[in-house]
Amino acid sequence: MKATNQSRRDFIKTTSLAAASLPFMSALSSCAQTPDRKIGFALAGLGNLSTNQIAPALQKTKFCRLAGIVTGHPQKAAAWKAQYNIPDKNIYNYDNMEQMADNSDIDVVYVVTPNGLHAEHTIKSARAGKHVLSEKPMEVSVEKCQQMIDECKKAGKQLAIGYRMHFEPNSLECIRLVREKVFGSAKIIDAAFGFRIGDPTQWRLKKDLAGGGCLMDVGIYALNASRYLTGEEPVEVSAFTTVTDPVKFSQVEESISWQSKFPGGIIARCGSSYNAQGMADFKVSADGGWFKMDPAFSYHGNHGVRSDGQEINLSDIDQFAAEMDDFAQCILENRPTRVPGEEGLRDVKIMMAIYESARTGKTVSLA
Amino acid sequence: MKATNQSRRDFIKTTSLAAASLPFMSALSSCAQTPDRKIGFALAGLGNLSTNQIAPALQKTKFCRLAGIVTGHPQKAAAWKAQYNIPDKNIYNYDNMEQMADNSDIDVVYVVTPNGLHAEHTIKSARAGKHVLSEKPMEVSVEKCQQMIDECKKAGKQLAIGYRMHFEPNSLECIRLVREKVFGSAKIIDAAFGFRIGDPTQWRLKKDLAGGGCLMDVGIYALNASRYLTGEEPVEVSAFTTVTDPVKFSQVEESISWQSKFPGGIIARCGSSYNAQGMADFKVSADGGWFKMDPAFSYHGNHGVRSDGQEINLSDIDQFAAEMDDFAQCILENRPTRVPGEEGLRDVKIMMAIYESARTGKTVSLA
Repeated sequence: MKATNQSRRDFIKTTSLAAASLPFMSALSSCAQTPDRKIGFALAGLGNLSTNQIAPALQKTKFCRLAGIVTGHPQKAAAWKAQYNIPDKNIYNYDNMEQMADNSDIDVVYVVTPNGLHAEHTIKSARAGKHVLSEKPMEVSVEKCQQMIDECKKAGKQLAIGYRMHFEPNSLECIRLVREKVFGSAKIIDAAFGFRIGDPTQWRLKKDLAGGGCLMDVGIYALNASRYLTGEEPVEVSAFTTVTDPVKFSQVEESISWQSKFPGGIIARCGSSYNAQGMADFKVSADGGWFKMDPAFSYHGNHGVRSDGQEINLSDIDQFAAEMDDFAQCILENRPTRVPGEEGLRDVKIMMAIYESARTGKTVSLA
Repeated sequence: MKATNQSRRDFIKTTSLAAASLPFMSALSSCAQTPDRKIGFALAGLGNLSTNQIAPALQKTKFCRLAGIVTGHPQKAAAWKAQYNIPDKNIYNYDNMEQMADNSDIDVVYVVTPNGLHAEHTIKSARAGKHVLSEKPMEVSVEKCQQMIDECKKAGKQLAIGYRMHFEPNSLECIRLVREKVFGSAKIIDAAFGFRIGDPTQWRLKKDLAGGGCLMDVGIYALNASRYLTGEEPVEVSAFTTVTDPVKFSQVEESISWQSKFPGGIIARCGSSYNAQGMADFKVSADGGWFKMDPAFSYHGNHGVRSDGQEINLSDIDQFAAEMDDFAQCILENRPTRVPGEEGLRDVKIMMAIYESARTGKTVSLA
């Protein structure tokens, strides 16, 4: 079995597809040059993701540096200050973060707070003159997503959403396999992401902060995959939700399945759960073959197989570092991000339609 | 990695579940005894399935023999007569098959004709005093399925549907894994079966003979799997169909996805296609682990893996031989088949609801 990086590189060099129709170019293409200055990131929200993924990733970036933090926990502030040598003047809380306006160390605020606070923290950051990278899901309603877009636009600042898979080489290769019709025309996409959630008191299980359950948190990866693989927007969705543990899942769905129809005739069958294991994969069934990734959405070790026996196993990068370096380059070169607020808004719109379908028992049109 | 036949056998010996709640017992349990006489099968419909699977399988049975044929093609009759030494008196066509009433060589008619003719040929056989084994799908409408059940009952003859997976050891093992909660409670089942259909003139693409497209032909395996794995009947279904080749698929669906909700909270996400490759698998995601079969529905070589690293790779039997031997034993011992007409009717009812949902854009209740 042979990895396929050669052909992806050739494709990106030689394809006649415009960048607009294939927005997922290599994350590594311009990393070789040395930046004049590094973009200063402030992390807002110092939970697990910031602690275990984003802060370590920042140390691996070429164009970024951890310049500041925003946290409501003084003890976290002290620990991060000590670990990352952050000056007191770059440490903020959610009540005074607008004062970043006077702090030239900070170019970008990476919003890693609960979903339902992304708009508040994005808007405060934009008004303080900062670019914003917000974690996904973008927010808990279409209206709040639109506010984020509008406020960043008004401030003349870029807004990106933390879709790390858009920078992951194996995902980019899978996009190529579909768009270049390596196995003919894709017909059915099956994608799922779920896990068994722990602590029953966490914000992810609270409707106001999370906006929903497993769909908003990890199902969004399957949804986004169905969109980036096809390069199309779904025109119809239908969905089911279930709860088998009504105590733990009193506010949000425990499991969900949804199916979506794309303009070219592709059907995506997707699922997510907060109470099931072995769901972090996708498969594309095409008229000339198939390929699948399992795992497809992990921080590391994503790999797959193709119907011709070849493996999909490209280099295992730090996805957060690639995402942040790309955003830093977009800012430095004043060009648009491949994962703008509009991309986040699209997923939230579709997720709201998915919930509507589960609630009403009717197919919801997105056209 | 270690196969798991030991534990299945133990389970079947020791479980407190009644046979009624676990109808899928070992196909091999009573094959050791020598029969007093072999049950005579007449095959009605001498297409690919009869030629390449069922007739060869009959040669491997312990309780059955190929006694006769029913065909509308005299040249096929001549070829089969020569190959299998079938006496002229046991060769029928669809117009004179009622005359089997006078033929004691034939105990069972195995109906392998197009879906939309199963009722006609079943009813003729029952009225001739023969037991009937009908291929799946049972028929193209609920009404015709019910007629088959009623006529066989009236004739005092058994009616079985050709659900070969109910006799396949790996499938039985998967049922055990769910019912015995080896990986905890199942939450999400993903099942799909599709392939790229050839000859555009074949009856499978004609609505009146086939009743539908890929769902009726192979999607039924995914549907039936969702039911045998859970041991429950779905209470709601929703579905999408698509056609990308309107010439070839002018009468029936090309691809379909459906989701169904089960009383215990399990969601099944299922798919089928006549124009996609790499779909013949299922996965069960449970709260304590997972397992998957790929392929899950093949004539041979079904195998799978479990989240604990063990393989699911039990003995590769001839499923058709097991299915026919079981039916023969049911007849010899005057006990009910595990795959009665009622089982076929349930799938047809659900498939009609799936089509209704695809047509109306509404979730269809099956309660």
